[in-house]
Amino acid sequence: MIKVGIIGATGYAGAEIARILYNHPMAEVVWYGSRSYIDERFSSIYGNFFEIVDDACLDDNMEELADKVDVIFTATPQGLCAGLVNEEILKKVKIIDLSADFRLKDVSVYEKWYGIEHKGVPYIKEAVYGLCEINRETIKDARIVANPGCYTTCSILTAYPLVKEKLIDPNTLIVDALSGVSGAGRGAKTANLYCEVNESAKPYGVANHRHTPEIEEQLGYAAGEEIVINFTPHLAPMNRGILATEYASLIKKADGSLPTEEEIRSAYEKYYKDEFFIRVLPKGVYPETRWVETSNYVDIGFKIDERTGRIIMMGAIDNLVKGAAGQAVQNMNILFGLDEKMGLDMVPAFP
Amino acid sequence: MIKVGIIGATGYAGAEIARILYNHPMAEVVWYGSRSYIDERFSSIYGNFFEIVDDACLDDNMEELADKVDVIFTATPQGLCAGLVNEEILKKVKIIDLSADFRLKDVSVYEKWYGIEHKGVPYIKEAVYGLCEINRETIKDARIVANPGCYTTCSILTAYPLVKEKLIDPNTLIVDALSGVSGAGRGAKTANLYCEVNESAKPYGVANHRHTPEIEEQLGYAAGEEIVINFTPHLAPMNRGILATEYASLIKKADGSLPTEEEIRSAYEKYYKDEFFIRVLPKGVYPETRWVETSNYVDIGFKIDERTGRIIMMGAIDNLVKGAAGQAVQNMNILFGLDEKMGLDMVPAFP
Amino acid sequence: MIKVGIIGATGYAGAEIARILYNHPMAEVVWYGSRSYIDERFSSIYGNFFEIVDDACLDDNMEELADKVDVIFTATPQGLCAGLVNEEILKKVKIIDLSADFRLKDVSVYEKWYGIEHKGVPYIKEAVYGLCEINRETIKDARIVANPGCYTTCSILTAYPLVKEKLIDPNTLIVDALSGVSGAGRGAKTANLYCEVNESAKPYGVANHRHTPEIEEQLGYAAGEEIVINFTPHLAPMNRGILATEYASLIKKADGSLPTEEEIRSAYEKYYKDEFFIRVLPKGVYPETRWVETSNYVDIGFKIDERTGRIIMMGAIDNLVKGAAGQAVQNMNILFGLDEKMGLDMVPAFP
Amino acid sequence: MIKVGIIGATGYAGAEIARILYNHPMAEVVWYGSRSYIDERFSSIYGNFFEIVDDACLDDNMEELADKVDVIFTATPQGLCAGLVNEEILKKVKIIDLSADFRLKDVSVYEKWYGIEHKGVPYIKEAVYGLCEINRETIKDARIVANPGCYTTCSILTAYPLVKEKLIDPNTLIVDALSGVSGAGRGAKTANLYCEVNESAKPYGVANHRHTPEIEEQLGYAAGEEIVINFTPHLAPMNRGILATEYASLIKKADGSLPTEEEIRSAYEKYYKDEFFIRVLPKGVYPETRWVETSNYVDIGFKIDERTGRIIMMGAIDNLVKGAAGQAVQNMNILFGLDEKMGLDMVPAFP
Repeated sequence: MIKVGIIGATGYAGAEIARILYNHPMAEVVWYGSRSYIDERFSSIYGNFFEIVDDACLDDNMEELADKVDVIFTATPQGLCAGLVNEEILKKVKIIDLSADFRLKDVSVYEKWYGIEHKGVPYIKEAVYGLCEINRETIKDARIVANPGCYTTCSILTAYPLVKEKLIDPNTLIVDALSGVSGAGRGAKTANLYCEVNESAKPYGVANHRHTPEIEEQLGYAAGEEIVINFTPHLAPMNRGILATEYASLIKKADGSLPTEEEIRSAYEKYYKDEFFIRVLPKGVYPETRWVETSNYVDIGFKIDERTGRIIMMGAIDNLVKGAAGQAVQNMNILFGLDEKMGLDMVPAFP
Repeated sequence: MIKVGIIGATGYAGAEIARILYNHPMAEVVWYGSRSYIDERFSSIYGNFFEIVDDACLDDNMEELADKVDVIFTATPQGLCAGLVNEEILKKVKIIDLSADFRLKDVSVYEKWYGIEHKGVPYIKEAVYGLCEINRETIKDARIVANPGCYTTCSILTAYPLVKEKLIDPNTLIVDALSGVSGAGRGAKTANLYCEVNESAKPYGVANHRHTPEIEEQLGYAAGEEIVINFTPHLAPMNRGILATEYASLIKKADGSLPTEEEIRSAYEKYYKDEFFIRVLPKGVYPETRWVETSNYVDIGFKIDERTGRIIMMGAIDNLVKGAAGQAVQNMNILFGLDEKMGLDMVPAFP
Repeated sequence: MIKVGIIGATGYAGAEIARILYNHPMAEVVWYGSRSYIDERFSSIYGNFFEIVDDACLDDNMEELADKVDVIFTATPQGLCAGLVNEEILKKVKIIDLSADFRLKDVSVYEKWYGIEHKGVPYIKEAVYGLCEINRETIKDARIVANPGCYTTCSILTAYPLVKEKLIDPNTLIVDALSGVSGAGRGAKTANLYCEVNESAKPYGVANHRHTPEIEEQLGYAAGEEIVINFTPHLAPMNRGILATEYASLIKKADGSLPTEEEIRSAYEKYYKDEFFIRVLPKGVYPETRWVETSNYVDIGFKIDERTGRIIMMGAIDNLVKGAAGQAVQNMNILFGLDEKMGLDMVPAFP
Repeated sequence: MIKVGIIGATGYAGAEIARILYNHPMAEVVWYGSRSYIDERFSSIYGNFFEIVDDACLDDNMEELADKVDVIFTATPQGLCAGLVNEEILKKVKIIDLSADFRLKDVSVYEKWYGIEHKGVPYIKEAVYGLCEINRETIKDARIVANPGCYTTCSILTAYPLVKEKLIDPNTLIVDALSGVSGAGRGAKTANLYCEVNESAKPYGVANHRHTPEIEEQLGYAAGEEIVINFTPHLAPMNRGILATEYASLIKKADGSLPTEEEIRSAYEKYYKDEFFIRVLPKGVYPETRWVETSNYVDIGFKIDERTGRIIMMGAIDNLVKGAAGQAVQNMNILFGLDEKMGLDMVPAFP
């Protein structure tokens, strides 16, 4: 049985890890870390766990935790994981970091976009970007897995095969995405009150959202060159879900014609045919967040627009599952040599 | 492996049975019955099942079905199950009927409140009312289980121990309840359009909702006498969830004092202490539908009002799970001698 | 032109006063008081006022304000108005207090239910309870109007004629109500975050909500005796709206029969026939909050239940309008001898 | 007093016209046309009008209507207005058509995108596209005003000054927009049921939505050339509101630099400085649909992305007001020489 510690267990992503692991046959949570609620019963914060989890919340002591568990999930604000991790800890446990600390390889890019100093620079290089479907092999031996962001997971997977196969010009890529409100976290901010969010939609982080360089770095690897894109997130009045609508110019073939529907579909199938969690939808069917809610699935659809020579690629995930806790568990499964879908093989809940 | 057929698989309750059974280790759905969508792929209606269930929808042929499965769930409008069932079918399969056809023992009450003739009168007597926590023993040998209504499950379980223990006067009982919109079904009615329901709350079926006689009959058994109550359902703008707030006058003790908090709590514990799916909340904590969503749990809380001599009892369930599909699966587990919580032991999804 | 000052202008009720008064032909807001946002532009907090109101927020200086305006609305937490008001101020301006400070005549009841000392005891007696349809005549000459609570406005008006006419036993009254989230105010509390409230319903303040004594006092006046009732509020996932469902035993006539539908309707008509803002619905039609949203209307319906001898009375209002800002403006109109519906005569917005 | 007839009064846009005109000092609705509800009281369909409008619904007889009113609003499906209009009618009344029938000048484009034959071809040429802020002068003398679509109003106004001033390359324009559900109308379709729409977001009409040619035609006039764009609408779980996020490449200046923030702002001010209903937001502030709800305002913001050389333009409207009924009334005001904002000068309702 894999012993699991969660730091930041009372955030939405942390609690979602606990929810998923309850049905995981090979792992059990033994440490519910939450600075804000030390000694309070976890189920007094999350009533859904009443009579299911009896544990009280503990401090965020990573040293002590390293002795007690096999893997630590850090579902915490940026900077915390980078500031705590050290060689001694890494010798004892695997770390799956849900913050952005180890996602970007270039520390100056991190410090520019996040506005904080990186305290764990020596470990940036070895950390593996935990986008399971792309980096599965390198994740296996990692000590630190940088669990991808929610928008980035959706945005990258939706465009990856077409960038990789050079079917689209990556520098024309525009990612227009929306997220449910759980992506904003559980902090008590006026902006996230029910009445402020309900019956409204808004863009935010326009041209400067922190997930931008993460998308650029990963799709840049696929493209084999540095790329620059536009990414605009929006907030929509729903609890969960990310929907990304992405635009790019198709690269014409030698004869001047556009790639065909079949050629695009073949590219998706080349990379995703055997991917359990990626569902490429039939022609004319586009992703809807309701079909992936509470699940680890990524639904992808596309449409070629002959009039403009662009392709519209669309992807949907549950931001708390494939966009956070679910992918984190998927990474844990990879790290420990388990079936990748263990604990994650469920039908999305609808309605 | 128990072979399962669902008649009415494309309604919300039917699809929820399919969702739950996907993770049931001892049962598999082999027949997705849906008159409206014959030959259409089930997953083309419910996109959450894409690449999970490949079956096409079939007709509602109960005769044929009886030869192919071990248990039939009828998640259909009132009248259908009563009209189809016969001795030959019942010799071959168990039937769990999610409609109201076999819930009321008095056929005249059924015909009065439902306004239709009952076509399966000979089977009313043998049918067992499938409120698992109350009727577990008799369910075991039933051929027809009448799966309780959503409001009724919540309303009855919330008050049952206090009626049974004669702590409240059942004829003073007032049940004021609200439901999410999935309780209204998937029919294309103007009244259930998003814009008609969103940002609004309304009472309906005032003093004549069909779940009234069902509550009266069951709580009447507990009281040992016929009772008459008030029940008012309301529609609230959310997908799932039932919340029942129930009022009754406490029966004074011989010395003229009211029952104490502890005496009330003891009564709940007497009946529910070992019930996995019933969670009696601590003092001062009241049920919220969010804590039971997508799960089979029933959360119950109460408050004595010394000023008025009444008790306020509150219960919450997920109308599609404990209020329909989950309880149906729980009944199936009982019928087939399985662990009652098989396939149902999950943490409610939040947020 | 009546000059208006608002203390607490950046709360939901305060901003709603500003919204309504923008179309009031005889009043204009000249002071937007908000301790939290002094010197910030009002429209930077409430973007709906962008290019409509250019004022910056000012401090809550009631002395200074009294020299500049004709009427002050205090849309502030309990205790503030009572602590600021004095004879000098009252000589200069009318005060319409949206807090609970002057609603209860018995200071000990206030201090017990609100848990704070009342700092303006000398003014309690003269303050008039501003339930316009009931107290219109006494409001006219008031210096302090205690604007009723949202739940109380709806609860009282829904039952008032039947209590007054002795058609129901007021001590059997049970008020089961639900409110949209704006009733919880704009404070940054975790409990009111979008994801905590959305897709959920819950009771709160069970048997101890502060609006209970307010309903009891006012309906007690109508009954001509002290009464004790049950009141249970619930939170529902919507921005605006209050729906009250009220139960009471009908008082039998001399011949032992219940009052008829027509007798009940006559009682409502006796009091409300000429009331512009009270709409008694036709037989079989019940209130829905969507039909009163953004308006000052109160919709009332009822149903006699012959089986139980009870009547179910139902009322709906917009908690921010008739339940707060709208009724406050209606009170202002009465105080200044204007047409009572000035600035308030609008069709509710739907959907 | 202008006498108004509404054909399609029981659709969301038709009812919104009735709501707005209730407070219009110079117009009154005398004909509530609704084929589906002939002889039923309008307020029995729209309970918000109870005791406000007593009229019963009438047939869609345009001939008869022309004799009784000064202006007809057709808030009906495509094809109806084009099929009814004739010279005799136009001699008597003004027509403001909220359908798409007279929006596109090229009948073949209409017939291709809408898939129906145009029955009123002789009147296409004279019909004026009623985008008030752009075509005010030509609207004044029109007999038929083609009221713009909801997405198109928002999309065009958001980009218009930059296209007109040649600051952006119109053929790089990508419009990614989302709408509340009222845009889908009041028809009883499964896809628009509460549970199907709530807690979900989806794209639809990808690369073939009918508002595409309308945007292209109007922005083409501004550009002085035919243009081709991408437009992708999405459905978001809210009643009202359209948010358009638009991307285009900035045209570099002679010195190779991008236009500055100030130059862009100047362009917006050149066209919109005196426009009452268009609010260009301050730097760093972006539109949110909540700030325009129930109002005729258009909120516009923008952000230059130096990294990609693109500009992100964002616009928000209420789809039922500026996107339909409000703009229709604004057009009526222009047609009859009234103050353009008569009946429309209100603060948006929030929350």
